[in-house]
Amino acid sequence: MKILEEKILKEGKRYPGNILKVDSFLNHQIDVELMEELGAAFYERFKDKNITKVLTIEASGIAIAYATAKLLKVPVIFAKKTQGLNIGDDVYTSRVSSFTHGKDYDVIVSRDYLTKDDRVLLVDDFLAIGNAMKGLIEICDQAGAEVAGIGICIEKGFQNGGNDLRQMGYDVISLVIVDEMDDDGTIIFRDQE
Amino acid sequence: MKILEEKILKEGKRYPGNILKVDSFLNHQIDVELMEELGAAFYERFKDKNITKVLTIEASGIAIAYATAKLLKVPVIFAKKTQGLNIGDDVYTSRVSSFTHGKDYDVIVSRDYLTKDDRVLLVDDFLAIGNAMKGLIEICDQAGAEVAGIGICIEKGFQNGGNDLRQMGYDVISLVIVDEMDDDGTIIFRDQE
Repeated sequence: MKILEEKILKEGKRYPGNILKVDSFLNHQIDVELMEELGAAFYERFKDKNITKVLTIEASGIAIAYATAKLLKVPVIFAKKTQGLNIGDDVYTSRVSSFTHGKDYDVIVSRDYLTKDDRVLLVDDFLAIGNAMKGLIEICDQAGAEVAGIGICIEKGFQNGGNDLRQMGYDVISLVIVDEMDDDGTIIFRDQE
Repeated sequence: MKILEEKILKEGKRYPGNILKVDSFLNHQIDVELMEELGAAFYERFKDKNITKVLTIEASGIAIAYATAKLLKVPVIFAKKTQGLNIGDDVYTSRVSSFTHGKDYDVIVSRDYLTKDDRVLLVDDFLAIGNAMKGLIEICDQAGAEVAGIGICIEKGFQNGGNDLRQMGYDVISLVIVDEMDDDGTIIFRDQE
């Protein structure tokens, strides 16, 4: 998606170790107008899939989930992260290893809001090794809900998450795939035309 | 706001100790259509205040911040919570005591996104004793930004946050104020007409 690639080139901050920070528009400050366009792209892609819920993980997935769900006219659910000592039995739960933060956490979703009748669109701001997304898939499995699609704003194509999910058979769209980041700051995007 | 009062009566879950859970529509599952109406109410109230940023705290303030900012045509910033060991000097920071969770945390906002030229609308889903909101005010003070208004979806009128903020001179609107919750589940809303 051209507009997002351009925004990344203009405002994304690159750091050694393939770190890309986009907190001027995606996950700290939010460029609402841009987010609306990203949500519209997911809507166009998944509008015929009879989606009943858009599911993401707090916190940085909430804005894109909201922008998408508004167009699909369905609710958002954001899974909560917890270092859960006492997780009740009224929730679905999955353990996630965070690559970014180097520690594990649980994601939980109330059993009240996800059922076997749901067709779920998973969305998130970033996809790298994909553990968070796999956690959401596990939660949908526990609920008996169907994962009808996965929408990612920025996929790091040099990590395995996207490939894993596609090989598992999921319908994944990444609006931008970063295939390479060089130490001099160059970013190479995958041509998805 | 009638529509929100009705939603609370219909779907809010009451627990002993004045606990009101609204996670079917406000802060776990999100009723997007309702959120749009809440955002529109904040917009109507603050549209002439020359707001430049809508500031909230992750995670449950993000949706209402987004809905409001979209209409105001300004960016959202969501302050991050951290049990910060090593907080850099590139952020504003404030220590918050959480009444709900019984522990302290730091809220941080990057210095890049809030400046003395900003006129900030603070929004959040809930206001009880108001510590989170006071943390955001402190961050605006550090930035030299002006707090041009405060928008709250549900204020617990039997706790002090709202009164404190109004006495400090802030322009606070709460779409619903819960003045009393009885053990039998009765909820008494403040008449704000």
